[in-house]
Amino acid sequence: MNCGEGIDTRQIDELYINLDPIQAGGRLTTDAMKAVLAYGDGYSVCDHCNKPFRLDYISKPPLAEFHKDLAAFVNMDTARLVPGARRGFQAVADALVKPDDPVLLTAYSHYTEFISVEQARGTPFEIPADESHIITKDAAADRIEEVIRTTGKKPALMFVEQVDYQYGNLHPVADIIKVAHQYDIPVLCNGAYTVGIMEVDGKALGADFLVGSGHKSMAAPAPSGVLATTNEWAETVFRTTRVKGDLTGRTFGIKEVEMMGCTLMGVTSVGMMASFPHVKKRVKEFDSQVKYVNQIVDALLSIEGTTVQSEYLRKHTLTRMNTTESFDKIAKTHKKRGFFLTSALKERGITGILAGSTRVWKFNSYGVTEEQAKYVADAFVDIAKAEGLSCSS
Amino acid sequence: MNCGEGIDTRQIDELYINLDPIQAGGRLTTDAMKAVLAYGDGYSVCDHCNKPFRLDYISKPPLAEFHKDLAAFVNMDTARLVPGARRGFQAVADALVKPDDPVLLTAYSHYTEFISVEQARGTPFEIPADESHIITKDAAADRIEEVIRTTGKKPALMFVEQVDYQYGNLHPVADIIKVAHQYDIPVLCNGAYTVGIMEVDGKALGADFLVGSGHKSMAAPAPSGVLATTNEWAETVFRTTRVKGDLTGRTFGIKEVEMMGCTLMGVTSVGMMASFPHVKKRVKEFDSQVKYVNQIVDALLSIEGTTVQSEYLRKHTLTRMNTTESFDKIAKTHKKRGFFLTSALKERGITGILAGSTRVWKFNSYGVTEEQAKYVADAFVDIAKAEGLSCSS
Repeated sequence: MNCGEGIDTRQIDELYINLDPIQAGGRLTTDAMKAVLAYGDGYSVCDHCNKPFRLDYISKPPLAEFHKDLAAFVNMDTARLVPGARRGFQAVADALVKPDDPVLLTAYSHYTEFISVEQARGTPFEIPADESHIITKDAAADRIEEVIRTTGKKPALMFVEQVDYQYGNLHPVADIIKVAHQYDIPVLCNGAYTVGIMEVDGKALGADFLVGSGHKSMAAPAPSGVLATTNEWAETVFRTTRVKGDLTGRTFGIKEVEMMGCTLMGVTSVGMMASFPHVKKRVKEFDSQVKYVNQIVDALLSIEGTTVQSEYLRKHTLTRMNTTESFDKIAKTHKKRGFFLTSALKERGITGILAGSTRVWKFNSYGVTEEQAKYVADAFVDIAKAEGLSCSS
Repeated sequence: MNCGEGIDTRQIDELYINLDPIQAGGRLTTDAMKAVLAYGDGYSVCDHCNKPFRLDYISKPPLAEFHKDLAAFVNMDTARLVPGARRGFQAVADALVKPDDPVLLTAYSHYTEFISVEQARGTPFEIPADESHIITKDAAADRIEEVIRTTGKKPALMFVEQVDYQYGNLHPVADIIKVAHQYDIPVLCNGAYTVGIMEVDGKALGADFLVGSGHKSMAAPAPSGVLATTNEWAETVFRTTRVKGDLTGRTFGIKEVEMMGCTLMGVTSVGMMASFPHVKKRVKEFDSQVKYVNQIVDALLSIEGTTVQSEYLRKHTLTRMNTTESFDKIAKTHKKRGFFLTSALKERGITGILAGSTRVWKFNSYGVTEEQAKYVADAFVDIAKAEGLSCSS
């Protein structure tokens, strides 16, 4: 068999309301689709590359301007495109963390943040969450003190997630960063679930590094992302190459070490750029999205036994529910077992929740319309009632 | 202004014969274009991701099978997708090179190979080329001996390019690797200009690591590439994460440290996979491409004063010419100065040579048809004659 021939057409987002926790903010805009076709070839953006030879200096297509716009968009001094948020973490960790350095992360840090520390040979220490699943400044302060006391070293870097992947909670990043800065610890704010979704002001947060994901939250093809920083830290993380060919004497211009030179050519950078006007607009409309997710959560909470594990009211569309005492009771005797819920949703044109989940599961309603929000809310109640669960709505 | 609106349609490859040195092998196939549209969203390939959660285990679309096919295609034991060849260099350098370790490269190593060494804090040493611009096994042996003598350390890694970016010459990689192995030095073979262009047999070369570029030579969107290795080295470069959340006890499954977990989702992996059947076919037809480039070079050599700096007869389509004693003489007095040549080519529907070049310049005729090869050959002679240069053809 020829694996290239096994690629089916995929129409998930054309045929369904997709509540997948990680897919919602990355769906391409129509403009991104068009741009992807015009710039499918990787080096297509290099047609007009001139000295200095680097992606963020190319003016046609307007990548140079896009880099400036991106930095302004998140209110940071400078920005670079990276092949996914993880490569932004990697760049910062490699630039700042030496072997055996302690590094602070949180109880909700993503695996890619941990791996960036592992790759830099640092030692990770988690800041615990409180009982509401929030990382607080006090917890950060306590952990910093403890790590300094037990390791005898100041942490080289702190990672903190603006909105985390587990609960979709919005953490008090500005406060946490203020604490870290009292100890002169630089902070990377992981905005994978926020940059491109809601308005993010890096300076107001006090972030030294701000990382966003193109394919998670900026309607861009994968792998794409953005790493933004301040003038203070730019010369560290975006330092240019100093290596030299010892016989030929070759040097390599202004290519940046942690970026490995140019990063995103073709579909990834141009797709991200094509979606950018839409992304700039949609972040201003996030309030509606928050309203819609709360409507859906309220409908779920009206089903007896259902609880929301994320903070409530919701401040972000990524949400973690607990239906152990509602849908999971049905699953125990249903002929479709745990698959009855996702199956019933699919019959109603709703997809994206992990198949078989009836206890703890996540959804992300980002991008639904007012009508779709109501439809999804009603669908959950409808399914519950059909299975004999009592509902207060 | 809105930079997202500044993206013009690009039709270089529709309207011209494109001889760009780096673009030729990366142009998407029609199947890749279609796949890019169906899988534009990054996480679209993750719909059916199940335990173990990793890109190379996904069976729908058939990424698991594709990874196996890719390894077989280059005759290595195992392969992973990476965001560009450079990220393959980075992974290997980070896994093998410790600070201050000597690392061997060649006089023709690409800047991204150097930067991967710089990032790993290694010290680069170049193997010189001979007067025919070939890296020989004797030069490699001499340099290994010298580096061991002067640094007191055995090089941690050697990079060698199968075909280099400067001359497009085919180097005796198998012989060089044999020498390196006598000193137990592992070798990364850079196949950015060969994997996907000509048949490459990693085992026959003896390569410990073989790196290819999707957007340079496999008709895939950027950033994409492949890192293949042997069973012996897989556990080093593809080692799985061992990091742990110190409070939560979280571990991160079988994600690989140097890959930063999953690598290419959506357009990049699916585009590469869609082109793969075509790529497997076209490598078997490389002889024709070599015939065509030699026809073009022969036509150029018929222009008095012109020399070819690459090895001749050509064994690869990427070629470096010297027209200092032919076209550059015309440029000195032409009203378009050095731009007359690229301008005259453009009038004839040929593009891709660096604008303004009339001394030393590169072209890559990869992908031309028999008719186009003749047309390009004739065009050069035609331009030369029109400018009064004498031609022997």
